[in-house]
Amino acid sequence: MKEDIFPQGSAWMNGEFINISEARIPILDWGFLRSDATYDVVHVWKGQFFRLDEHIDRFFESTKSLRMPCSLERDDLKKILAGCVRHAGLDDAYVEMIQTRGVSKNFQRDPRKANHRFIAFAVPFGWILNPDEFEKGLNVIVSNIRRIPPESVDSKIKNYHWLDLISGMFEAYDSNVDSVILVDEGNNISEGPGFNIFCVDASGLYTPDKGVLEGVTRQTVLDLAEEINLPVNLKPISIDMLNDSIEVFATSTAGGIMPITKINNQLVGNGKPGKVTRQIHKSYWDLHVNSRWTQSVNDLV
Amino acid sequence: MKEDIFPQGSAWMNGEFINISEARIPILDWGFLRSDATYDVVHVWKGQFFRLDEHIDRFFESTKSLRMPCSLERDDLKKILAGCVRHAGLDDAYVEMIQTRGVSKNFQRDPRKANHRFIAFAVPFGWILNPDEFEKGLNVIVSNIRRIPPESVDSKIKNYHWLDLISGMFEAYDSNVDSVILVDEGNNISEGPGFNIFCVDASGLYTPDKGVLEGVTRQTVLDLAEEINLPVNLKPISIDMLNDSIEVFATSTAGGIMPITKINNQLVGNGKPGKVTRQIHKSYWDLHVNSRWTQSVNDLV
Repeated sequence: MKEDIFPQGSAWMNGEFINISEARIPILDWGFLRSDATYDVVHVWKGQFFRLDEHIDRFFESTKSLRMPCSLERDDLKKILAGCVRHAGLDDAYVEMIQTRGVSKNFQRDPRKANHRFIAFAVPFGWILNPDEFEKGLNVIVSNIRRIPPESVDSKIKNYHWLDLISGMFEAYDSNVDSVILVDEGNNISEGPGFNIFCVDASGLYTPDKGVLEGVTRQTVLDLAEEINLPVNLKPISIDMLNDSIEVFATSTAGGIMPITKINNQLVGNGKPGKVTRQIHKSYWDLHVNSRWTQSVNDLV
Repeated sequence: MKEDIFPQGSAWMNGEFINISEARIPILDWGFLRSDATYDVVHVWKGQFFRLDEHIDRFFESTKSLRMPCSLERDDLKKILAGCVRHAGLDDAYVEMIQTRGVSKNFQRDPRKANHRFIAFAVPFGWILNPDEFEKGLNVIVSNIRRIPPESVDSKIKNYHWLDLISGMFEAYDSNVDSVILVDEGNNISEGPGFNIFCVDASGLYTPDKGVLEGVTRQTVLDLAEEINLPVNLKPISIDMLNDSIEVFATSTAGGIMPITKINNQLVGNGKPGKVTRQIHKSYWDLHVNSRWTQSVNDLV
């Protein structure tokens, strides 16, 4: 096996900060062997966490829903996350907090017997769409693969069940495009690997109402739309509605607002990022210097 | 955090055998962060692997379907699995082979850039139902939680997407019963955490035809039924059909043939393991001393 090549990064495990290349979990952790884990990802931009409390709120909720409530206090959790960023020496970072079911004594099958594990790490900020490719935008296909339905796994709990999305990514690569959108069981669009979808038509914005992760970036778009009096509709979106949209964009902590300019080899609008997408994109990054939405890494000690 | 307590066991990673307590994977392995992995579990009973080639066939198929074909030759894989059992010093063992997507260089998001990882380990044989509780049998509920559908994740690929099953286990514990059966989207029964389901009525055996793992123990029951001319029907099983069954049993590598004697607080038949269940159970264990179905751990060097 080739040597693994790790990014710059730092992790917090078992009470100490370590280099990301040293951060390992036991293979008998149920977080690995059953994907019995939840997580959240917050980003740091120019030394500032963005909407940190909202990410922590969701993480606390997710860990409670899975019956392994995070035992850290909010302030201590913040210090750990900030510590990872400082130890990694990063200004722009992708910061992940993870709770796993952990290892159970003598590998008992009962999840109630496990010793929950908390991990955090920081690595360089990663982009689904590189900023220098903003004008080009994302070229995606809609797959027949169905996103895992909320009747199976509550989509409000951020989870690592990604084989549907990974299979979709391989379909996208086979078609020489950048990424993929999965459908739900009603054949409406759901989400892509790590991003929510917004469509724009003459009446305003719309985005799927259920069966998708309620992304913090998605919520930020809803908040921004309200501020500028742009109507938003949360509703099922058929593939025809997607195809008829004037603009389409993806939202993710890993890159913010990303125009989708081609779907199934058809241009969206004129194939350029549209007016609404540009406006939301600009407003989104403007929020990153607004202290109402940010917290400084260096203040969290 | 409390100290983890590991079972007796041994793992094979990066070309060497190590104690199970030392076996760890990088947290940046996509097998952890995306559950982008597949696996198989074979058992060893009194020093003999049971249906080893069938488990390896399925593992090879699963790794191919996920586009990370196992690079080991069959004979080398067998030697590694047997080596884990010998290093662990076990006569009865649960032996797992795992392929993960691995770590990608500098944490790139593209799964094609990852450095696939193979791991194997052996731990003591584990039972879903302890043999001394065979007469009591399993007491289960049918949950409303839907097993992740095959339109999302191909159920033929053995995978770690278990949050639906884990949530079901907690429902079972809340109801003071042993385990749970999930349903499919047609509200027919699918499977439980680690086991397939068989029902018995006057006409013979039946078991769900799709959306479930095609378990090796399930296949063994199908093979045994053919040998004794017991008709088997692969078809959707409604909850009413389940409730009307004379006998119900679960099948798993983790314990073989296990009677289900109570469902939703109603006795199955007279609440004792039935005649067919006993016959299949006996035949199943008889196969473990039949060289057509077994391979000696000590011969694989």
